Amino acid sequence: LKELDLSVYLSEIVLALGGDLRGEDRCIDRLAPIESSTPNDLVFISHPRFAKQLKLTKAEALILPPVLADQMMDRCSCIVTQDVYYYVARLTQWWRRRFEPATAPFVHPSACIHPDAQLAPDVRIGPFVVVEANAVIGAACQLDAHVVVERGAVIGAGTHLRARVTIGARCVVGSRCLFHSGVVIGADGFGFAPHQGTWVKIEQLGAVQIGDDVELGANTCIDRGALGDTKIGNGVKLDNLVQIAHNVHIGDHTAMAGCVGVAGSAVIGAHCTVGGGAVVLGHLTLADHVHVSAASVVTRSLLKPGQYTGVFPLDDNAAWEKNAATLKQLHALRERIKQLEKS
Amino acid sequence: LKELDLSVYLSEIVLALGGDLRGEDRCIDRLAPIESSTPNDLVFISHPRFAKQLKLTKAEALILPPVLADQMMDRCSCIVTQDVYYYVARLTQWWRRRFEPATAPFVHPSACIHPDAQLAPDVRIGPFVVVEANAVIGAACQLDAHVVVERGAVIGAGTHLRARVTIGARCVVGSRCLFHSGVVIGADGFGFAPHQGTWVKIEQLGAVQIGDDVELGANTCIDRGALGDTKIGNGVKLDNLVQIAHNVHIGDHTAMAGCVGVAGSAVIGAHCTVGGGAVVLGHLTLADHVHVSAASVVTRSLLKPGQYTGVFPLDDNAAWEKNAATLKQLHALRERIKQLEKS
Amino acid sequence: LKELDLSVYLSEIVLALGGDLRGEDRCIDRLAPIESSTPNDLVFISHPRFAKQLKLTKAEALILPPVLADQMMDRCSCIVTQDVYYYVARLTQWWRRRFEPATAPFVHPSACIHPDAQLAPDVRIGPFVVVEANAVIGAACQLDAHVVVERGAVIGAGTHLRARVTIGARCVVGSRCLFHSGVVIGADGFGFAPHQGTWVKIEQLGAVQIGDDVELGANTCIDRGALGDTKIGNGVKLDNLVQIAHNVHIGDHTAMAGCVGVAGSAVIGAHCTVGGGAVVLGHLTLADHVHVSAASVVTRSLLKPGQYTGVFPLDDNAAWEKNAATLKQLHALRERIKQLEKS
Repeated sequence: LKELDLSVYLSEIVLALGGDLRGEDRCIDRLAPIESSTPNDLVFISHPRFAKQLKLTKAEALILPPVLADQMMDRCSCIVTQDVYYYVARLTQWWRRRFEPATAPFVHPSACIHPDAQLAPDVRIGPFVVVEANAVIGAACQLDAHVVVERGAVIGAGTHLRARVTIGARCVVGSRCLFHSGVVIGADGFGFAPHQGTWVKIEQLGAVQIGDDVELGANTCIDRGALGDTKIGNGVKLDNLVQIAHNVHIGDHTAMAGCVGVAGSAVIGAHCTVGGGAVVLGHLTLADHVHVSAASVVTRSLLKPGQYTGVFPLDDNAAWEKNAATLKQLHALRERIKQLEKS
Repeated sequence: LKELDLSVYLSEIVLALGGDLRGEDRCIDRLAPIESSTPNDLVFISHPRFAKQLKLTKAEALILPPVLADQMMDRCSCIVTQDVYYYVARLTQWWRRRFEPATAPFVHPSACIHPDAQLAPDVRIGPFVVVEANAVIGAACQLDAHVVVERGAVIGAGTHLRARVTIGARCVVGSRCLFHSGVVIGADGFGFAPHQGTWVKIEQLGAVQIGDDVELGANTCIDRGALGDTKIGNGVKLDNLVQIAHNVHIGDHTAMAGCVGVAGSAVIGAHCTVGGGAVVLGHLTLADHVHVSAASVVTRSLLKPGQYTGVFPLDDNAAWEKNAATLKQLHALRERIKQLEKS
Repeated sequence: LKELDLSVYLSEIVLALGGDLRGEDRCIDRLAPIESSTPNDLVFISHPRFAKQLKLTKAEALILPPVLADQMMDRCSCIVTQDVYYYVARLTQWWRRRFEPATAPFVHPSACIHPDAQLAPDVRIGPFVVVEANAVIGAACQLDAHVVVERGAVIGAGTHLRARVTIGARCVVGSRCLFHSGVVIGADGFGFAPHQGTWVKIEQLGAVQIGDDVELGANTCIDRGALGDTKIGNGVKLDNLVQIAHNVHIGDHTAMAGCVGVAGSAVIGAHCTVGGGAVVLGHLTLADHVHVSAASVVTRSLLKPGQYTGVFPLDDNAAWEKNAATLKQLHALRERIKQLEKS
């Protein structure tokens, strides 16, 4: 496996990102996971509770919070910073910019751009991209191979659509977004009127509005609204294979892990987190700062901030079978306890 | 956000779709969600139990059932109809036809059509579409950008495949279907024979048969059968990110919400509904008119119509932890109750 | 529906694959599911516990284990073999090779191959495929329509990427793999540092390493590692719509059914199975030979082989409501039992 060549001196990092360099300056090869680090690596410990991992590492360069720095300075070079995790995030971004600089603007000759589409002059448009009539592609956007932007859709400045993202007609995407491969924005919401045993389609006349700085994982889907729009706030982060149904509103800076499903017309606040595989039923309201545990099913509105969970505990299969069977008698057992208490 | 310009007179709507117009005729801008409506909007109340919402709306045009019409006629124009929801569905369809008329037939010059494929003369084929040998594309079909129809597949009249739908070799799709972006029909079913600690592939020699008037959501997958075919009935509606495994049969007019998984060889009746995130295990039978609640796991055949549920109730995390821990002792608790009853 | 014409004599099968032919040789049309078989079909019974199904079949040719052969030989021709299911797997492979022979190598003229990419001379490259700079496509690979292989990615010999698979930059795929349509390898892992109420992206600098003989279902996603690589062992089989997060390691010959989600940094052993819709939380370890039941949620490491389950039992909705409500008092009920025991 070819690796990115990421060699830099610690002093270069500190010059770019701040922090205190303690011990000698050295050239490091890469930022490494602590468990597989070698002497030329840079590793980080984000919190004192991981201090015992320091003994495991062979790396001779560390990023540490102040409380851990003293004990390591005898054998290592340290970059000391209050918020290690945030520092590491900025470091990875700095590395990416440094070692994978953006290419010059281009429009691949195979791309199919409608003459009535508007492209900013500095876009990068890959092979077999389709941009339909009246679509608007903002400054410095990058559209990778096979991206489709349908008629009238608007993509904000600096947004990056990875290979084969689809943006449906009239949907609006903010600035500096990153959508991974296979994302589908603006498929029809799932709306049908029952009529004499069949389903009659309700045409989905709304669109999708997505804010700035939104990241969407691979194969994630956000449906267009039935009448109004589905709305995703600024700074929202959704992982892979997430389903957002029509008319949902998601507040700013809310994050959802993989395989989450949010049903129609749910209104989810800002700064929420939803764990992987969780399901939020339709027409519910979640307040700001609600946190739903992985694989939990939200069946009622949650109007107070807090952590909510509903998962059947895992057990070895034999134990589970006994408890699950008894669970079907639970209400009856409660009645028997009541009887016992009376007598 | 550019909106569809949907201005029409109420009298035009009634002329096209029926219903009684009461009060003065007026021009409305759009069909609006009741909570965000403005005076020039048309809103609807589908059922008397939503009557109190009428006070919230600023709209001066309403679609209502007869029992609600009298109380609103003093301040609004009303279209009165028995089945409001069905009326609204037809209205959205009428609007779509009126404001987004179908384009003339065309085959985009970039499309890659095998000379042995059969295309009806009035198809619309978008850029970078691939149609392989012996595929048949019926009258008035629309294949959007990047659609792939593999060899020998058959697409019925009037079917619309959105951007980058894939139809596998020898699969058959009925008439008037709508498949959203990213749908994959006819990937191999998940079939392997265990052999000395490894998995030996069972080639999937069947195909997929899909009826008429089927709608499939974005990134939904239907696998080909192992020996026979996977079969989807007429009028079936599947939402986004649904997984239908090999050899499954789904009866007519059954609907499944997002993120449902149906395992191999399950046989699901007609007129069933499956809520979002539910799982149906393999080789089970579900009778007609079975309704599975969202996120429930169907572990046995359901031979009687009805509503079935199995979801761990959501709670605040601290309460959940206590109850989940106790759940692991549930069978033992039952024994203790028995002992108490004896003594 | 056009079927594959699969006519062969039983003696041809036995010549190619071994087994004992008992009874007269005959020409059969196809391998059929036992429940829909006709006289000219070949059907199989893999295990004596399915023996009663033999009465249902009209087929006059059977593949059977030795213990079942004697009772059927009076009316049928039998191929007798110890491991029927494995024999059938090999038969389906033999049939596929025989009736759908590989086409000659080609590179479709519409494909967009970077001059610095390396293609083995005998590859088959479909329309609108994109292969970026420094990518390596091994001997006898097949890349179907719309596949994208990004810069520096390596595809091993004999691997088949179905329509619109995406392989991200620097990812490495082994030999003889089969990835179905819509697979996304190497999207960014879901990594963000919280900072003042927003999420700061941690650039994902790792890649994905996939072993030999791996099969991935439609629309399945495997994210690239944050610092190190996400690693998938040899012989791993993942069904459709599976999500594998960054830094996960999956051991050799582990199989996962549809809609499974594995969270970041989980380490899953060899020869494990994970049932459909199950969720494995992050940073957990699963030993070799761990088997997780469908729709179960793994919330702790499982260091002993065995079958593990955690699913709320399905019930009719009314019964479920009563038991679920009582479940919220379960801990309190336990206290009441304790009280009763004391008194």
